[in-house]
Amino acid sequence: MATQLTLRMGDGGDDRPVGRFRAVIAYRGTEFSGVAENRDVRTVAGELRAVLEPVVKRPVELALAGRTDAGVHARAQVISFDAPADLDTARIVKSVNGRLGPDIVMRQLEAAPDPDFHARFSARWRRYRYTVNDGPCADPLAAGVQWWTKWPLDLDRMRLAVDPLIGEHDFSSFCRRPAGDLAVSLVRRVTEARWSRTDDGLLRFEIQANAFCQQMVRSIVGLSVEVGRGHISAGSVRSILLARDRARAGQMAPAHGLVLWQVGYDDGYGAV
Amino acid sequence: MATQLTLRMGDGGDDRPVGRFRAVIAYRGTEFSGVAENRDVRTVAGELRAVLEPVVKRPVELALAGRTDAGVHARAQVISFDAPADLDTARIVKSVNGRLGPDIVMRQLEAAPDPDFHARFSARWRRYRYTVNDGPCADPLAAGVQWWTKWPLDLDRMRLAVDPLIGEHDFSSFCRRPAGDLAVSLVRRVTEARWSRTDDGLLRFEIQANAFCQQMVRSIVGLSVEVGRGHISAGSVRSILLARDRARAGQMAPAHGLVLWQVGYDDGYGAV
Repeated sequence: MATQLTLRMGDGGDDRPVGRFRAVIAYRGTEFSGVAENRDVRTVAGELRAVLEPVVKRPVELALAGRTDAGVHARAQVISFDAPADLDTARIVKSVNGRLGPDIVMRQLEAAPDPDFHARFSARWRRYRYTVNDGPCADPLAAGVQWWTKWPLDLDRMRLAVDPLIGEHDFSSFCRRPAGDLAVSLVRRVTEARWSRTDDGLLRFEIQANAFCQQMVRSIVGLSVEVGRGHISAGSVRSILLARDRARAGQMAPAHGLVLWQVGYDDGYGAV
Repeated sequence: MATQLTLRMGDGGDDRPVGRFRAVIAYRGTEFSGVAENRDVRTVAGELRAVLEPVVKRPVELALAGRTDAGVHARAQVISFDAPADLDTARIVKSVNGRLGPDIVMRQLEAAPDPDFHARFSARWRRYRYTVNDGPCADPLAAGVQWWTKWPLDLDRMRLAVDPLIGEHDFSSFCRRPAGDLAVSLVRRVTEARWSRTDDGLLRFEIQANAFCQQMVRSIVGLSVEVGRGHISAGSVRSILLARDRARAGQMAPAHGLVLWQVGYDDGYGAV
């Protein structure tokens, strides 16, 4: 921390003390090429940094709790960054939201109580929600936030399908392995995985885990829907999990039905 | 009916018998310049007719239950039209929805049990819903379907504000009078008008009336929000209503928070 702090103070030509801040943000993923910064494309982190830097008047390096894929939404993503310690957080939120478009918003901002707080490394769990419309037609009012499958689905079968995923497992069958990296662990601990039918007749999937690997939720949803259609048996999910083979999980569900719902920290931050 | 039927049969160069059909449609109003056909702009009726005519293979004249303004959405708008009596409704729905974009959908289609059924003139009531977000920031996931007011609002005051509107009244203060037409009646019978707070913390307005005049719901919502902010008293709504003066109701709420929720008919059609 200390080294980084000194460097930063030099960078900005500014000797105000620097502190760690954390924020909860929400975004509609539709128009973004993912969350992480990436040259030449519009990303959530890129857009936020471009707005934050002139407001806090120094270079900002953002940490994000969850690396959501292109098109995935967030209700309560958590970010952290360093900025002048005397920042007026209420003013910054107002100023940032005034400059952001309608598809990102900063919901909260505060000085982190622990200077080592890190949006990603301090997080204890992440929770995602996926919404499926298995009714006879699409809902134009929910365009872009739910997946219309075109087939009715069997909730009971889908419930059974995801049961074997709870616990600590190697999710290689459900995850895209970072390019060429055979050493990276795809073991994750899933504490909840549940399909339900909402009062509006939609199918909702809620999943919580210590962390997720890439494409994991969309692969699980895609497989659940195959089970719900009757194309494969609920019992086959366990053997697909044990196979640790990416080719076994089948088609991923589309990104637009998925929302990063909440990120959990020891001190309860992130609950909005 | 008989004359119209004969004319239609001649028009199409087609001597198949014609029958009356009715349908429930939903649309996201954002990208439409209103519902009624209008040369050179994109309208719901224009788009539907352009898709229906090649599918039913004859000219179609659409009747609509509610003339929603530009930008207003519909969950269950009702339409009626004449088409060849032997239409395969399931096939037509599939074909129409396959040709419509993601912002309109045909939810139901059936032969009207009464050949005189008319989406507009047979309707007994219309029901609208308006959603207000009075929280500290906008919700990017609900962009385009709720009004973020930027101020917290007092539900109790808003409830009191709309009470005097229930019953049969001249709504001249809340309606745009059709150009130059001083004779047209703006008397409507409101059977329900109620503000509530949803489980998600949003403010919801539900209103049902035999019929609505133009801008009526948005004017009532705009006035309710002024009362909820504390800018005017709940009690002044009654005097504004009695004034029958369009200048008294103040700013209208934006179109994008409003949804035509349901249209009621004697035989229960329209409940989806």
